[in-house]
Amino acid sequence: MAEVIYNRVALIGLGLIAGSMSLAMRRAGVAGEITGYARSQATRDTAREINLVDRVCDTAVEAVEGADLVVLAVPVGAMGPVMQEIEATLKPGAVVTDVGSVKASVLEAVMPHIPEGVEFVGTHPMAGTEHSGPRSGFAELFDNRWCLVVPPEGADERAVKRLESFWAALGANTERMDPEHHDTVCAVVSHVPHLIAYTMVGVADDLRRVTDQEVIKFSAAGFRDFTRIAASDPTMWRDVFLTNKDAALEILGRFTEELFALQRAIRTGDGDHLHDYFTRTRAIRRGIIEAGQDTDAPDFGRGNKKGA
Amino acid sequence: MAEVIYNRVALIGLGLIAGSMSLAMRRAGVAGEITGYARSQATRDTAREINLVDRVCDTAVEAVEGADLVVLAVPVGAMGPVMQEIEATLKPGAVVTDVGSVKASVLEAVMPHIPEGVEFVGTHPMAGTEHSGPRSGFAELFDNRWCLVVPPEGADERAVKRLESFWAALGANTERMDPEHHDTVCAVVSHVPHLIAYTMVGVADDLRRVTDQEVIKFSAAGFRDFTRIAASDPTMWRDVFLTNKDAALEILGRFTEELFALQRAIRTGDGDHLHDYFTRTRAIRRGIIEAGQDTDAPDFGRGNKKGA
Repeated sequence: MAEVIYNRVALIGLGLIAGSMSLAMRRAGVAGEITGYARSQATRDTAREINLVDRVCDTAVEAVEGADLVVLAVPVGAMGPVMQEIEATLKPGAVVTDVGSVKASVLEAVMPHIPEGVEFVGTHPMAGTEHSGPRSGFAELFDNRWCLVVPPEGADERAVKRLESFWAALGANTERMDPEHHDTVCAVVSHVPHLIAYTMVGVADDLRRVTDQEVIKFSAAGFRDFTRIAASDPTMWRDVFLTNKDAALEILGRFTEELFALQRAIRTGDGDHLHDYFTRTRAIRRGIIEAGQDTDAPDFGRGNKKGA
Repeated sequence: MAEVIYNRVALIGLGLIAGSMSLAMRRAGVAGEITGYARSQATRDTAREINLVDRVCDTAVEAVEGADLVVLAVPVGAMGPVMQEIEATLKPGAVVTDVGSVKASVLEAVMPHIPEGVEFVGTHPMAGTEHSGPRSGFAELFDNRWCLVVPPEGADERAVKRLESFWAALGANTERMDPEHHDTVCAVVSHVPHLIAYTMVGVADDLRRVTDQEVIKFSAAGFRDFTRIAASDPTMWRDVFLTNKDAALEILGRFTEELFALQRAIRTGDGDHLHDYFTRTRAIRRGIIEAGQDTDAPDFGRGNKKGA
């Protein structure tokens, strides 16, 4: 059994990330007691039924009482209100963290509610599936994934290090980043790709000359990956775009600029432009395979992931 | 051993699709002899070395001599020139097919070269990987994938049926479509998603404030699927966009229209619009899982496809 890192951990929100954290904490033996709270009665009932955490509480205040680590695992837009609710109950010496996909606006919303003697350190585990809710978690979610650690200025180094060792025990690799850089990187590798996938799926759905049935039947060729991305939790993604507005709009601007150049090349029949562009992108893919973030098994467009 | 459907099959082009067809034909026992030709000496050498087909020929003419089925497995833009080369050699009663991703322009390029007594029937196996070249093929590529069958007007029904049974023997499900509808469906489910993926990867590559290293490290969250798509063969994709121009530009127009509406919602902070849009796309995803084109195993953004 590994060493206990936090005696009591409170999970606020009991969705995919919090549920997976609970299962990964148990696997690693790094938490004494795990309490949990979710706003919805149905979610709390399910969490009790499947024994997702050690103790499901009916209020956030009850869940954080005596907690050494409080994890805000709610949509980004809900973090400020949750903090307002629990700030008076936080134990001196406690650490508060969040698992949101955006960092600058979370810091802005949360920091005013962090009492003297309590530390806040943001984290962003870059792991997820298209599923959500208390039944969607699994202990392996963070294994070999990145968890970005985003301390505010002047954060206590020991608190940051302890949180990093906690995430490492849950299976993740950690890397520190400042909030603004975090938000730009995530706009590029995650937020804008999601928006684009949502849009492409929306276009397909709108198009009356191609039936839904056809879209679904013939989805293997590229489109399937988009639908997988676009099936993610709508509330979470709404909040991401509302709170990472500037970076998302900037990357979107670059994207449409480049897309228009390609569109023009198609219209004018400029094959060299297209070929050069399509050649350049292969290098990034090779880099990703070499970095171990994927395999080069030939499964694109294929349904052979079942046994994985 | 299954029944031989064509005594001699000639593969013109020896890339991923042709190579996989050869291996799938052998598995099914549906071809007497398989000949093959590729324009590049290096490809022919490799094909000989790995025994990809029964006989590698140094000219297309030699490969199609006496062939009952001729498969054009070259980029869409090369099909007209290849047909010009081989038309005088085609055996009466032979069937010519292609495996291109675009159909209207292939018919236009190929039909003038189809002699009296020879039948042309287009096909489009909707299967692929990000890999290309003679070593990339595998016998299972078409298993349970769709192969769209696109006969020209007045095609001989027996020839079409025989070709359908051939693709079924290679593992595919077949469905007939007319050329224009085929090109629209593919623009939606394949061509435009590919262009968008290429573009997003290009944006990431251009962006100097986010290093390539960061893009690669943190690619799991949505972006990884894009890079997989964007690593496909550049020549093939150039030809797709040059030859399916009208449908691609139309779908691109719809896409940018919808993207601008979402961009506006982000800028104005219209959370309801975003939430509604993101909710709608989930239904399509569920349809795809129900249609058996994918599983709902939680592997999005994860590298656990190795064992599949």
